[in-house]
Amino acid sequence: MDKMWDSNIYIKSELKEVVKLMKKNAKCKDKFIEKSIIELIESGGKMLRPAFVIISSKWGESNEGKVRALASVVEMLHMATLVHDDIIDDAKVRRGTETIQSKYGKDYAVYIGDYLFCACFRLLASEGSLQSIKIDSKAMSRICLGEIEQLNSKFSENLSVKNYLSRISGKTAELFSLSMYIGAAESNCSEKLCREFWNIGHNIGMAFQIIDDILDYTGTDESIKKSAMNDIKQGIFTLPFIIAFRNDKKKIEPYMKKETFDDKDVYEIIKLVRENKGVEKAKELALKYTNKAFKRINKLPDNEYKDVLIEVIKGLLMRNY
Amino acid sequence: MDKMWDSNIYIKSELKEVVKLMKKNAKCKDKFIEKSIIELIESGGKMLRPAFVIISSKWGESNEGKVRALASVVEMLHMATLVHDDIIDDAKVRRGTETIQSKYGKDYAVYIGDYLFCACFRLLASEGSLQSIKIDSKAMSRICLGEIEQLNSKFSENLSVKNYLSRISGKTAELFSLSMYIGAAESNCSEKLCREFWNIGHNIGMAFQIIDDILDYTGTDESIKKSAMNDIKQGIFTLPFIIAFRNDKKKIEPYMKKETFDDKDVYEIIKLVRENKGVEKAKELALKYTNKAFKRINKLPDNEYKDVLIEVIKGLLMRNY
Repeated sequence: MDKMWDSNIYIKSELKEVVKLMKKNAKCKDKFIEKSIIELIESGGKMLRPAFVIISSKWGESNEGKVRALASVVEMLHMATLVHDDIIDDAKVRRGTETIQSKYGKDYAVYIGDYLFCACFRLLASEGSLQSIKIDSKAMSRICLGEIEQLNSKFSENLSVKNYLSRISGKTAELFSLSMYIGAAESNCSEKLCREFWNIGHNIGMAFQIIDDILDYTGTDESIKKSAMNDIKQGIFTLPFIIAFRNDKKKIEPYMKKETFDDKDVYEIIKLVRENKGVEKAKELALKYTNKAFKRINKLPDNEYKDVLIEVIKGLLMRNY
Repeated sequence: MDKMWDSNIYIKSELKEVVKLMKKNAKCKDKFIEKSIIELIESGGKMLRPAFVIISSKWGESNEGKVRALASVVEMLHMATLVHDDIIDDAKVRRGTETIQSKYGKDYAVYIGDYLFCACFRLLASEGSLQSIKIDSKAMSRICLGEIEQLNSKFSENLSVKNYLSRISGKTAELFSLSMYIGAAESNCSEKLCREFWNIGHNIGMAFQIIDDILDYTGTDESIKKSAMNDIKQGIFTLPFIIAFRNDKKKIEPYMKKETFDDKDVYEIIKLVRENKGVEKAKELALKYTNKAFKRINKLPDNEYKDVLIEVIKGLLMRNY
């Protein structure tokens, strides 16, 4: 379990239960499939989305068993999208573990992703309500739209912050919104409160993705830098790059069409992005979303989990970078 | 609309409504996605699965609007699996139309398939019941398992009729079962009757797939022969081939590992499969499933749609081949 949960014993122990439940749901007559899904679960991410389900459920009549099931659903949906994303990106490694597509082939990854999607809806149908399935499938549609938007805007010279925000809203923020919404909705919170959690999830998700994209340009880790260059090679341009590009098209444009980058290129791109305030202005925007989230959280009805939520977000969105 | 429905004006007009509804559900803010889904719908298949939803619903308290929605769901699920299958098979053409993966790339096809899956669950959640979503997602999981089984058994020398039947049971029969089940279940038929429709669907699906595989060896159409050779090249062995192989391993084995087939090879394989009763015995098995279906249909409560169902199956499964 990610060490970010060490400070909250309850959330940590609940997340461990969620992992157990996911493993139980991975049971399958085909042992090969079971093994690859267990490997995915064990490669472990931060488990942010299930944590948000658990936290928002605390504003309602919480039913631990049901909440754990819903928390598993959102994490498995997330895993399904990662498996399919890795096909597109031709990614070799994710979370330090070899990807399904690299290990077993793209064909296999297509069906494992599909199988995970089905497992989610199966679990959702037995634990959730029709309303949640509706919200969930709508959210998943928007996630797919976000991914397709990203594909269609590849190598587009028409870079705009607006397009970027629309893209990450589908690609990332949607599942954060869904997690917060579903925890509250399935615990019988009022529709108004559920919508409020949806909005909080949106702001957190937007800030989270922007920060993730900033880290590509500020991190000292070589592998992170490579990931930024990999995005550029694939024609995917993120916020710091877009801001810098709009500031100095002439100098940055040549890098948009390069097919390989040597160390000097990498150094130059990072320098250009920083000089043109790409990192600085992206940070400002991330902070704007973070503050929006805090403002909304402060207005939530009082509850001991309000502080937990604030702490989680501080740890997540107010890192030094 | 396929001319097989010309003899039944009611089913034909209902299927036209289903097509309209699918097009309505393809509406999407991204016009490019909308266009590719409309193209898929218009390339049109036989629409067997939605027809089975409509027919089995006639044994209950039929609600036309709801039944059309469910019929759209099963056809869209079918389309989603085809889009993903075409990625695996690297197929260029389907139903005489260029495939999504060939036209727009594999990346795009992954997400279009996912988007279609989500659209199905969205529609199902607004028109169906939790029970149907459970049955549906379980069936879809089994379809994925069938596909993965097919991948894992590629180039396997351990060819058995049992494995083949298990594979097509997931790959094809499951969606036929689901269609018949869901039409009856959502029209409030008794659980016993719904299960009976599930079994009828299974038998029809099994016979349908076996016949489809036989046609690869009996058809005169060059493109069909090519499809059989393409399966063999990919290491996928269907029933006529398996039966023949088990009869004369020595002569057939060398063809299992060839990477290219010239006209002489094609002629030889077809000859060997026929000589070793591959086609004859496969026909017997298809007939066995067909008869099982008829026997169950005859025992259904009397209803004017019993004859319709019998006629459809006769047209579908008792063709000259």
